[in-house]
Amino acid sequence: MIIVMKAGAAKKDKEEVLKRIRELGYKPHVIHGATRDVIGAVGDERGKLVLHSLESMHGVESVVPILQPYKLASKEVKKESSVIPVSETLSIGGREIVVMAGPCSVESGEQIIETALAVKEAGAQILRGGAFKPRTSPYSFQGLEEEGLKLLARAREVSGLPFVTEVVNPETAELVAEYADILQIGARNAQNFALLKKVGQLKRPVLLKRGMSMTIQEFLMSAEYVMSEGNQSVILCERGIRTFETATRNTLDLSAIPVLKEKTHLPVVADPSHGTGNYHYVAAMAFAAVAAGADGLMIEVHPDPEHASSDGPQSLKPKKFAMMMEKMRLFAEAAGRTL
Amino acid sequence: MIIVMKAGAAKKDKEEVLKRIRELGYKPHVIHGATRDVIGAVGDERGKLVLHSLESMHGVESVVPILQPYKLASKEVKKESSVIPVSETLSIGGREIVVMAGPCSVESGEQIIETALAVKEAGAQILRGGAFKPRTSPYSFQGLEEEGLKLLARAREVSGLPFVTEVVNPETAELVAEYADILQIGARNAQNFALLKKVGQLKRPVLLKRGMSMTIQEFLMSAEYVMSEGNQSVILCERGIRTFETATRNTLDLSAIPVLKEKTHLPVVADPSHGTGNYHYVAAMAFAAVAAGADGLMIEVHPDPEHASSDGPQSLKPKKFAMMMEKMRLFAEAAGRTL
Amino acid sequence: MIIVMKAGAAKKDKEEVLKRIRELGYKPHVIHGATRDVIGAVGDERGKLVLHSLESMHGVESVVPILQPYKLASKEVKKESSVIPVSETLSIGGREIVVMAGPCSVESGEQIIETALAVKEAGAQILRGGAFKPRTSPYSFQGLEEEGLKLLARAREVSGLPFVTEVVNPETAELVAEYADILQIGARNAQNFALLKKVGQLKRPVLLKRGMSMTIQEFLMSAEYVMSEGNQSVILCERGIRTFETATRNTLDLSAIPVLKEKTHLPVVADPSHGTGNYHYVAAMAFAAVAAGADGLMIEVHPDPEHASSDGPQSLKPKKFAMMMEKMRLFAEAAGRTL
Amino acid sequence: MIIVMKAGAAKKDKEEVLKRIRELGYKPHVIHGATRDVIGAVGDERGKLVLHSLESMHGVESVVPILQPYKLASKEVKKESSVIPVSETLSIGGREIVVMAGPCSVESGEQIIETALAVKEAGAQILRGGAFKPRTSPYSFQGLEEEGLKLLARAREVSGLPFVTEVVNPETAELVAEYADILQIGARNAQNFALLKKVGQLKRPVLLKRGMSMTIQEFLMSAEYVMSEGNQSVILCERGIRTFETATRNTLDLSAIPVLKEKTHLPVVADPSHGTGNYHYVAAMAFAAVAAGADGLMIEVHPDPEHASSDGPQSLKPKKFAMMMEKMRLFAEAAGRTL
Repeated sequence: MIIVMKAGAAKKDKEEVLKRIRELGYKPHVIHGATRDVIGAVGDERGKLVLHSLESMHGVESVVPILQPYKLASKEVKKESSVIPVSETLSIGGREIVVMAGPCSVESGEQIIETALAVKEAGAQILRGGAFKPRTSPYSFQGLEEEGLKLLARAREVSGLPFVTEVVNPETAELVAEYADILQIGARNAQNFALLKKVGQLKRPVLLKRGMSMTIQEFLMSAEYVMSEGNQSVILCERGIRTFETATRNTLDLSAIPVLKEKTHLPVVADPSHGTGNYHYVAAMAFAAVAAGADGLMIEVHPDPEHASSDGPQSLKPKKFAMMMEKMRLFAEAAGRTL
Repeated sequence: MIIVMKAGAAKKDKEEVLKRIRELGYKPHVIHGATRDVIGAVGDERGKLVLHSLESMHGVESVVPILQPYKLASKEVKKESSVIPVSETLSIGGREIVVMAGPCSVESGEQIIETALAVKEAGAQILRGGAFKPRTSPYSFQGLEEEGLKLLARAREVSGLPFVTEVVNPETAELVAEYADILQIGARNAQNFALLKKVGQLKRPVLLKRGMSMTIQEFLMSAEYVMSEGNQSVILCERGIRTFETATRNTLDLSAIPVLKEKTHLPVVADPSHGTGNYHYVAAMAFAAVAAGADGLMIEVHPDPEHASSDGPQSLKPKKFAMMMEKMRLFAEAAGRTL
Repeated sequence: MIIVMKAGAAKKDKEEVLKRIRELGYKPHVIHGATRDVIGAVGDERGKLVLHSLESMHGVESVVPILQPYKLASKEVKKESSVIPVSETLSIGGREIVVMAGPCSVESGEQIIETALAVKEAGAQILRGGAFKPRTSPYSFQGLEEEGLKLLARAREVSGLPFVTEVVNPETAELVAEYADILQIGARNAQNFALLKKVGQLKRPVLLKRGMSMTIQEFLMSAEYVMSEGNQSVILCERGIRTFETATRNTLDLSAIPVLKEKTHLPVVADPSHGTGNYHYVAAMAFAAVAAGADGLMIEVHPDPEHASSDGPQSLKPKKFAMMMEKMRLFAEAAGRTL
Repeated sequence: MIIVMKAGAAKKDKEEVLKRIRELGYKPHVIHGATRDVIGAVGDERGKLVLHSLESMHGVESVVPILQPYKLASKEVKKESSVIPVSETLSIGGREIVVMAGPCSVESGEQIIETALAVKEAGAQILRGGAFKPRTSPYSFQGLEEEGLKLLARAREVSGLPFVTEVVNPETAELVAEYADILQIGARNAQNFALLKKVGQLKRPVLLKRGMSMTIQEFLMSAEYVMSEGNQSVILCERGIRTFETATRNTLDLSAIPVLKEKTHLPVVADPSHGTGNYHYVAAMAFAAVAAGADGLMIEVHPDPEHASSDGPQSLKPKKFAMMMEKMRLFAEAAGRTL
């Protein structure tokens, strides 16, 4: 942590700061500058948020953090990429690009089984589908809940595809974990720390979506929450951030992929369906995500988007999805990956 | 809902859209334009999100919502302002501006009692303090939990001030409600729908903070979640949104105050401490909030900010807080309010 | 400037960095940390942007600037507030709050004279009106140009109010300066450096609007451009930044007022008309700006907003403007100012 | 344009609105809704911005535009993609992906010629380099100006590569056009309408960069400015928008590529160097841009980034650039393009 003193700060103020740094267990190191002094606080990085309180002290202009606040998620701690097993034959983070596809919401047994078979046929390795749905309106369809989980399990049996589904409440997290192969934390719960701690205690891989206005550093801190409870199987999912642009539902931040690849060992997938909100743009952004280095994709597919209970406008029909998968293989190959 | 057809959309496509509108229970109304047709879908507003799925249909360019999706929170439904009772002698939303002050976290009995007495002396009507703390880092201080609630209750007894404290988990919401006078939902949980539903079932006023990247419409939808479960006592709190600016921790969106006053009957308070993240700017923004029409303020006060467990840089010392309250009375008066 | 080395950077890399720092004329100062080294580069601040290039070097993790890049605009250089004379009897930045009011565009002699007299009657001290208009569409009304300047001069003669009008092109800047009392640089030209340099060479105060996505630091750098050419009379204008919120045209960042007051000696005014884009919200935000410490306001007033050539929805009618001014006097008084 | 009336608007108000719509030359069309009326204004789209002024009228809740405000740039007007010739043998917008590479600033004859030969060798088809530099600080290097243009012309002679360079001032635009093959409008000047009009009158292709907080619609309106003056040769360049994220200098919005491809016939290129601000991320984002459908790329290459006058941290060394080009060919092929 670097403490920048004000130009012309009193000697007494500086001494108080040095004293406080020592009290907190750090070693101060003063650099006398042309117009002001700068103090480095050297020491273990863990408690460093407390150092921020020095900003309240007389004569202090600002406090500048130097180190990243995450540890378990950091590439400095674990250099090799994490490969997270999902089933006996499938894992995420290796050479194979993993595609999770399916409807936004599970609506019926027929719908989910038909979709599961179609996406499998096209090459998807995981089924996605929402049973507990976090909707912005209390009057919108809230999901089939446990009934939805049962239908997903049935679709898994028929298709052989493991499935990922969302957890929205610590109270029902264990129930979801009984059925699901991967637990999804949605963007709106990305800083719901009670929920993050809960899934950190369960024995299932966690697909963590980036919050709509979350920095990459905060995203890794949320992963750290899950990991600090004992669950190291976290898959990061870029799904678009909120900007002023209205032509797309969100702005899919693909640069987050190379940034995350540099900072963390965890696998990174992209969700171009939520990222764009418009099925016209999904294929282009899926290809781009593969080219940018994504380890996987999450794609909404619905047999009848015009009649979908949610997110129809961003869902691909199975036929379009299959065409996209065909072309995506070429990009996977260019990236030195398989699909 | 308005459905805009593409220029040169086929007649067949248009007929499909008209059919689908009727199927969903709406009455279509076509306007033939110079280059394209526009279709109004007339009917009850509740289910209208489903109409969005029409965007997937052939020949449709876009679907434009016309009505607000909230109902109970809307001024169209309830024209007079809501005045929400907090204790026998205090309510929020009336002529009196209500100030909630106290530390970010409850750290000890001494700290919270000293602060309670000081802020009361300066004119605050409600004590604030965190017992369950949602921190971005799992390694930061997470709050004293139930012990903190007990200390808050003790401070209430000593000072006579009711208190507001945060709820972070549906599993502990009832416990918090046993102690607290007002339940706070923090910015990071503003779209934690499981938690919103839970506090909607409790018998305590809810102080709902705006999420960091929440539109005003989404903010009102979150209020609607609480209200649709039966709890009409919702106090909205503007606490800053996330922008590109880094000179302040967030950008306090004071224009949200007149916008909310136009759209909803619920009271609106502002939190300049989180809004700016810097105690230097708190007074100016508190005065501005009062001038903009806020019904109350939430201010962080700490007897010793340099040693605070959290949010030291944005906390005022009791003496500065008292000076601010003095000056704020002048602005309250200019606004035709009391303090 | 602080250079953060990577954990485990090679000794050779560190030596290269030290050498380069010295080459650039700075004195390096190394702090040996627990996991990595941090190097302070001590020296004159002017050329420091070049130090950023060190980020390309092997073993360097990041380069963190410590000092502000502006000098003439900084309060460190000139501690007392600048008071900028506009006419023999009027200046901006003193105890008096200065209100600039008038239509977005000059449309006719009748319109601008009628408005000038009305806003003067209500207490405004400066007339505003656009002659050269920067419109987002080439098909929108582009202003009356020199004819508009003549009409503004005529309105000044009749009303006695000095006027502010926008400069959009270095080629016509001198022409505008022949007529106008204050030269306005619009938000879209806030980083049009050719134009900033040009008005820096003219002998007229400059009202500089903040760009839509400009940080406060960049805003001060644009002021620095004008000042570095010799013109110290710069008035800063907060007019709203671009965020995800759509209920208002922009998000008026009132916290910029106390931040700017801390960092610069230049006067600061606010424009709630562009800031909100909706005349319903203008009065509330004008009051808030005064409470936050603004030295002045810029308000759009039009005798017939429904027929305005531009910005009708955000213009007040003269009668509403007069009512607002009445109430604003109370807030000015609470702020210890006159109006 | 759709005019939404308030719930319970008076009959008189509605009649006034209908009258005003007719006055403006549009045909009103009323839809009677369950709680409010909605009025369509049917007519030629050009003047429609004036309709916005209806928002000031009594009883009007909001005015919703239906049509895009651009015409010449629109795919509705010209369906086939525009292919813009740059030299006798090169054009942008066809099957070939065009790479423009070179330093941020021209610094010396040696530097620019060395770079030109290196990027040509690696496969770039156009040289880039700044002679007039728009820098945020008046104390930063402002470019070699005409001397820089001469050096670029010399590098073109030696390498055979045409070059693109920035225009920053209407007063020097013709001078730049005498030398350059393509005129670049930088992000900070993307709404400098005086400059846009000027380059619209010149006979050189224009590379228009997206402004930092420009919506896609505004971007196309800026293109429309150039085109409406007679110059149809506009190349759009996505170069990153400003968001809250700080891990990258900007957020490269690759979804703008498929969105623009749907809305306009103009070619679209991407600039991952400015988009990320960090040479580590340039290759990943360049590949992603090609996969997303870009017609070209703009890449900063410098023989000695540690000593660059500007933008060192985001510049690739020639060797890394060559490696990137090798790999990019695979992605171009996957996209059905050549490079």
